[in-house]
Amino acid sequence: MSERLVVIGGGAAGSSIAAKARRSRPDLEVHMFERGPHVSYMSCPTPYYIAGRIADAGRLVARTPEQFEQSGVRVHLGTAITAIDFARGIVRAEGGQGARGERGHGESAGGESWPFDYLAYASGASPLVPSIPGIGHEAVVTLKDLKDAVRIKEAIRARGARSAIILGAGLIAMEMAETFRALGLETRILHHGDRPLRRLAPSFSEAIRKELEKQGVEYLPETEAIAIEPACGEAQPAGALRSPGTAEGRACGARVRTSDGRTFEADLVLAALGIRPNVDLAREAGIALGFSGAIATDDRMRATVSGDSGRAPAAGRAYAAGDCAEAWHRILGKPVFFPFGDVANRQGRVAGSNIAGQEARFPGVVGSWCCKIFDLEVAHSGLCDEEAQAAGIDMISAQVTASTRARAYPGSQLLQLRILAERATGRLLGAQAIGTEGAVSRVNVVAAGLHRGMTLEELAQIDLCYAPPYAPAWDPLHLAASEALKRS
Amino acid sequence: MSERLVVIGGGAAGSSIAAKARRSRPDLEVHMFERGPHVSYMSCPTPYYIAGRIADAGRLVARTPEQFEQSGVRVHLGTAITAIDFARGIVRAEGGQGARGERGHGESAGGESWPFDYLAYASGASPLVPSIPGIGHEAVVTLKDLKDAVRIKEAIRARGARSAIILGAGLIAMEMAETFRALGLETRILHHGDRPLRRLAPSFSEAIRKELEKQGVEYLPETEAIAIEPACGEAQPAGALRSPGTAEGRACGARVRTSDGRTFEADLVLAALGIRPNVDLAREAGIALGFSGAIATDDRMRATVSGDSGRAPAAGRAYAAGDCAEAWHRILGKPVFFPFGDVANRQGRVAGSNIAGQEARFPGVVGSWCCKIFDLEVAHSGLCDEEAQAAGIDMISAQVTASTRARAYPGSQLLQLRILAERATGRLLGAQAIGTEGAVSRVNVVAAGLHRGMTLEELAQIDLCYAPPYAPAWDPLHLAASEALKRS
Repeated sequence: MSERLVVIGGGAAGSSIAAKARRSRPDLEVHMFERGPHVSYMSCPTPYYIAGRIADAGRLVARTPEQFEQSGVRVHLGTAITAIDFARGIVRAEGGQGARGERGHGESAGGESWPFDYLAYASGASPLVPSIPGIGHEAVVTLKDLKDAVRIKEAIRARGARSAIILGAGLIAMEMAETFRALGLETRILHHGDRPLRRLAPSFSEAIRKELEKQGVEYLPETEAIAIEPACGEAQPAGALRSPGTAEGRACGARVRTSDGRTFEADLVLAALGIRPNVDLAREAGIALGFSGAIATDDRMRATVSGDSGRAPAAGRAYAAGDCAEAWHRILGKPVFFPFGDVANRQGRVAGSNIAGQEARFPGVVGSWCCKIFDLEVAHSGLCDEEAQAAGIDMISAQVTASTRARAYPGSQLLQLRILAERATGRLLGAQAIGTEGAVSRVNVVAAGLHRGMTLEELAQIDLCYAPPYAPAWDPLHLAASEALKRS
Repeated sequence: MSERLVVIGGGAAGSSIAAKARRSRPDLEVHMFERGPHVSYMSCPTPYYIAGRIADAGRLVARTPEQFEQSGVRVHLGTAITAIDFARGIVRAEGGQGARGERGHGESAGGESWPFDYLAYASGASPLVPSIPGIGHEAVVTLKDLKDAVRIKEAIRARGARSAIILGAGLIAMEMAETFRALGLETRILHHGDRPLRRLAPSFSEAIRKELEKQGVEYLPETEAIAIEPACGEAQPAGALRSPGTAEGRACGARVRTSDGRTFEADLVLAALGIRPNVDLAREAGIALGFSGAIATDDRMRATVSGDSGRAPAAGRAYAAGDCAEAWHRILGKPVFFPFGDVANRQGRVAGSNIAGQEARFPGVVGSWCCKIFDLEVAHSGLCDEEAQAAGIDMISAQVTASTRARAYPGSQLLQLRILAERATGRLLGAQAIGTEGAVSRVNVVAAGLHRGMTLEELAQIDLCYAPPYAPAWDPLHLAASEALKRS
């Protein structure tokens, strides 16, 4: 009798696990349970789908349920796993119709029971929503998955939205500011803190603030929402954005009250305040969480189940990957919560390989991410200043503003590039770049260096591709590294 | 009395040596002798200057003679060094007026004698020209330095050129094909071999051929020039390009005869057949050459002078950098002739630092270069297939065609990426990429990996910056590395 893998969650990680495990071990029976209506969708491009730059939501789906079924993975949509019993090797599934009419073992009023030999936990993460009065208002939305994106796109249309408020100033807030402006919405960002993308150097945040202003986004720092109320076209405070409401038959908007007594109204409020891993069920089932609050794993993406003695049924049979799991940070030398779609894919593939009996190890992350903010390209890898300080590392840093191409070449732009390194050893710790082009490409070189423990001295002399249309002879990376060396 | 550094050559390397040495050791007397009319110019952007995309030749000059003089470097333009006597520590300079009227010691009919304490050899390289009849025809030009570029630009204008023939199919040939087409010239490439940029994979060369064709460049492989004759508007073979000549008062063009009896005519013939290091004087002076024919150096860019016993005057006082010198190849583990402007800059800075008494070492190259060919971006790092085979390395390779951005993101393009690695160890050996965007950025990540001995397995899991506008979640690098791993 074949063994069975149960995958909880059908996002990037769950889909990668299921596909990889089944492909690598065709005799494995693979069931993927997804609470929502979609599997194997890409979350990261959803702002561009909402903006209409990606016309069809289907383009965000890497693999349809039908394609999964054809490859032998049974997909259970609209089906939540509500309990995991590792001792008996059974999960409880609720709400679904089974895969193609198939039923689990032991049906009951509380759902179906599915025995498993391997369990992969890939339940993702959920948006943080502030527990303030009125947060449940129908004009308040969050964006994490494709379902959310479809809902937001529909809400903008159905509500005839002409204005939006974004709570928060992280990556999703920045991308959605661009989306709202692309759709012609008046857009305001209310941020309880000071700087947008605060992991970046202050001058970078300042460049972002200027870009937001240039693009007609009102950025309001130190502005904390404390309540949300319905707003149906009442009078507005002087200087406020045009009133939302029902005068033209549109749905009521929302009024955001802030801690300092101001109010702001809009047709739509996006809460983009970060995400937290979905681990409630895991915790209940005895899966160990890490210090970050996400599921702890080893480098094979194996989770630990409490009471798991090595001879218990769950030993080596529980895996986790994606936004619900931690990722090893190679520079910090510890696991972190680092929820990005590309990491989910890679962790999922590693988990799937190991479940299938192959040997695969997740080497960890170096903290790379990037973001398009209107005309700005922003990239980061490694540690930011505060992380390095918090880790007690004596560091040196340098920041340069340098040409992206040969100075004389038409279209050359200026790039701000910041490099961090350990003072004693010269070991690279991180890099950040911002500009209208060339930020990601420079930071990715540092990412490769971080992966392998490159030093400032090496970076200052590294042999990169040089031609005037693509880089100056002294690349911004050379210049930043040389500048940092002077301070070592 | 202060010590004196004599720098032979004022290109990228010589200028870097002079500037760095003087800046690091202000008491050093620095004299830079340049045979031509320019110092500290950038050669690589010259095709874009000729094309008119860079309007002013002054923009190609990093530092003017006046700026050098202000920083304390004496510049001798139009001055050739004709002899080096290491035993006596003297060079002979001819043709110049000295720096600002200053004269060397011991003038004579044969020039001036300049004693030196340190000698830096940075004489660059010269274009190879085939020794065929008529090669001296005034319509035949080469492109290596700014002087050449000014001459070509002027020749196109003065000759009323409407057509050009390029001999060769290397980097300069490709860039100048784009330049000639931008200026509206009918353009033909005659290549004695088969493929353009033959270090690239055959499918890459094929993509380049298609691009050349699309842009109206006639590419003629296996076509070897054996003679060049004046052509002043005579009858043309059927199917030939429009006849050059004097009918409209233009200068006579040139007729190229090929080994298989064909003839081709054009107003201008560019010989772009590669370059050779300028080492005649060095050889005569006893400076040791390497196997590649360029000057051998250690990692401080010190040259070896024959009879140099460690106590001789020249010991540790002769340096070389730039196109006339070899560069250590980190992957091949041996010195190579690798004449690129960025390498010249880096070697020059290292030489200048050491001359000034600082400790600096040139870490070598990994073989990175890139090139714009009309709408194509081409990049290379490490070894090509033939080099790896010639080095006796048992290698694996994989080639993918993958999206440069998230598949669904507007404007995503397809990139061809090829990866080479050592079979036994998985150690990366090289990468090549070609496409309309994203080639350089991917290859530079590999360049960083090559510098540090990264493996395929690491590259397959590397944490790069991911956002839909800049990359797919599985980057072409991940895909190529995974594909290669399957073959290991």
